[in-house]
Amino acid sequence: MARWEPNARLRLVQAAVDLFGEQGYDSTTVTQIAERAGLTRTTFFRHFPDKREVLFAGQEEHARLLTAGVEGAPATATPLAAVAAGLDALTSSFTPEQREFAPRLQSVVAGHAELRERSAFKRIALAAALTDALRRRGVPDPTASLAADLGVRAFTTAFTQWIAPANDQSFPALARHCLTELHGAATALS
Amino acid sequence: MARWEPNARLRLVQAAVDLFGEQGYDSTTVTQIAERAGLTRTTFFRHFPDKREVLFAGQEEHARLLTAGVEGAPATATPLAAVAAGLDALTSSFTPEQREFAPRLQSVVAGHAELRERSAFKRIALAAALTDALRRRGVPDPTASLAADLGVRAFTTAFTQWIAPANDQSFPALARHCLTELHGAATALS
Repeated sequence: MARWEPNARLRLVQAAVDLFGEQGYDSTTVTQIAERAGLTRTTFFRHFPDKREVLFAGQEEHARLLTAGVEGAPATATPLAAVAAGLDALTSSFTPEQREFAPRLQSVVAGHAELRERSAFKRIALAAALTDALRRRGVPDPTASLAADLGVRAFTTAFTQWIAPANDQSFPALARHCLTELHGAATALS
Repeated sequence: MARWEPNARLRLVQAAVDLFGEQGYDSTTVTQIAERAGLTRTTFFRHFPDKREVLFAGQEEHARLLTAGVEGAPATATPLAAVAAGLDALTSSFTPEQREFAPRLQSVVAGHAELRERSAFKRIALAAALTDALRRRGVPDPTASLAADLGVRAFTTAFTQWIAPANDQSFPALARHCLTELHGAATALS
């Protein structure tokens, strides 16, 4: 039977980000991450397939939250309003802890080609999940994929704004604002 | 002095795609690719850093063509017209040979997580290059990044249409059509 390990997942992410920052991503092992978190390697592998995935923890959960938000929007909602509902559901799930270690996490990713590629894939995968959720509401292509692109861009732009030291706005408020701005920009294209 | 090696780059790409299809990506070595192409390992490494990059040959050239097309658009062109000029320049560069081996190349990429991530990065990198080219024309954010997203989506959608066996339209014509459709969709968002 598994021991009681409160917040094991979060402790592993924090330990990994600390160690990556202190001694570099390449030099850090799963064993070191587990030890720093006060947990075992077995517990590590219950949560993550390898050390790289610690940096992308929550990708599936993010897609699930985004999709659930879109599904929960009223049947009469426009494609953009459905995307906004998805962004609300997703951005509301972020915690102060995530905001705190996000800059260190981003700097680890920025320093490695392989991690930048993994990060790009996360964005493409989020857009694909959002496109599918919109199609299931009957939104035709290419409106569905365009609305998904706007949603993912609003998410990534708002994330950068949210983790900035001087920011005092909530992540959902920033995401809504970004989405509105992007929609405005769509009318200025030609 | 280097020997005269006509079309070395194209021969290496074709040999690699053939071998990946015949015996799998993982089992294929750089030596085998060079031998199949009738070239040396040294020649291979003059063109590509490793076997993976054979599959993404031309990424930098694609970004360069796209950017040059945007830069060549009239100063009075709208952001969308500038993107269309970039797409014209890029899609006109594709050859019948590229169309012919594209489906096999796509199936190799689809079968490997690492290659899918590399492919996602290529899309994100193209969008970033396009965004920068638009900013240099004075297009403000977020219009620049939105227009870039539309351009890259038009490129990838038109590419899929272009390589379909039944297609008889040119790549530039398909890309222009996709861009027009995406622009129309932008007005249907809300």
